[in-house]
Amino acid sequence: MGRDGEASRRRLLAAATEEFAAHGLAGARVDRIAATAEVNKQQMYAWYGSKDGLFDAVFAAQLHRIVDAVPFTAHDLPGYAVALYDSYLTDPEIIRLVGWNRLERVPVGDLLAGHGALTDPKRLALELAQRDGLVVDGIPPEDVYAMVIGIAGSWSPLSGTVTAAAGDDEADHDRRRTALRDTVARALSGPQRGEDPVVPVLRAEGQT
Amino acid sequence: MGRDGEASRRRLLAAATEEFAAHGLAGARVDRIAATAEVNKQQMYAWYGSKDGLFDAVFAAQLHRIVDAVPFTAHDLPGYAVALYDSYLTDPEIIRLVGWNRLERVPVGDLLAGHGALTDPKRLALELAQRDGLVVDGIPPEDVYAMVIGIAGSWSPLSGTVTAAAGDDEADHDRRRTALRDTVARALSGPQRGEDPVVPVLRAEGQT
Repeated sequence: MGRDGEASRRRLLAAATEEFAAHGLAGARVDRIAATAEVNKQQMYAWYGSKDGLFDAVFAAQLHRIVDAVPFTAHDLPGYAVALYDSYLTDPEIIRLVGWNRLERVPVGDLLAGHGALTDPKRLALELAQRDGLVVDGIPPEDVYAMVIGIAGSWSPLSGTVTAAAGDDEADHDRRRTALRDTVARALSGPQRGEDPVVPVLRAEGQT
Repeated sequence: MGRDGEASRRRLLAAATEEFAAHGLAGARVDRIAATAEVNKQQMYAWYGSKDGLFDAVFAAQLHRIVDAVPFTAHDLPGYAVALYDSYLTDPEIIRLVGWNRLERVPVGDLLAGHGALTDPKRLALELAQRDGLVVDGIPPEDVYAMVIGIAGSWSPLSGTVTAAAGDDEADHDRRRTALRDTVARALSGPQRGEDPVVPVLRAEGQT
């Protein structure tokens, strides 16, 4: 593909990313994408085959941004959860693309199947952190990962209760960040990070 | 409305619930809903005004099923999280409706705004459980609620990692249920429920 083709393709993916994040697969308008990108529809179908094919290409192209929205630190899962919370505020597009993909394309199973290169390092880092006593033991690394994402999404744009949005009071954000940090620490820290909980428990038993 | 009208309306809502859960607001076909329900489209528009109006009516009609999918027990949040996990297996329609509603109708804010009658009792029960030392203190009840839903959804049909499905091995379900139960207990139990964690921590310090 020539330089013009590459540039057209980039514009097309950028326009499609925005359109799909806003409206989903069924709701997106191919005419609108083509017009925004200044690419003709026939060219688009030649490249991606169908609207579904274009959606999948957008998801694949955004995968790094989705999976590595924030640096993963197995030794600091509370900090990771808070960073995810913040990423949903600044970039809700990412999690909306995940939601549409679940509802319209991959309703069950592993959303990242076939992308082990993106997920294996996290699993390995969690395993090592478990061995070092920094992450809770007895829960497989992939389940620890699923749960830290789950907790971090408590106020995400897919939340069933209340969403956090960039316009909320900073006090609300801080309250939720503190709740997340403390909760993930209690839930998923290993014994080497577990000193803090001892004190209130001993006090509750009158051993201050 | 006569008895025939009521029956037609029930058939219409049932058909619309299934169609919207499967395809969302943009993807749903009004013709298919009307045909399945054996209700003519003009009648449908007379009742609900628009496709959006029908979607909102479906969500309102399913709200009790969504919010009270499983009995809420503030004293047993680990059990509640496991029951939610099971409800997503047996009835994925519910959380799909939540997902579509977030993506297509209520992208930010409180999904249950104006439905305090459904949520106030839970908040109150959590407050009392916090006062009794059964639920972690220092986190507002609404945030505890958001986080227990968040954790319980770690393998839900909206999950960004791996979904649990009815066809998975029972061993997988049991492993996740145990992980959920233990994690919610560590994360959200109060000091009166906090005895268990003491033992491993003391052992880690060589005081067996």
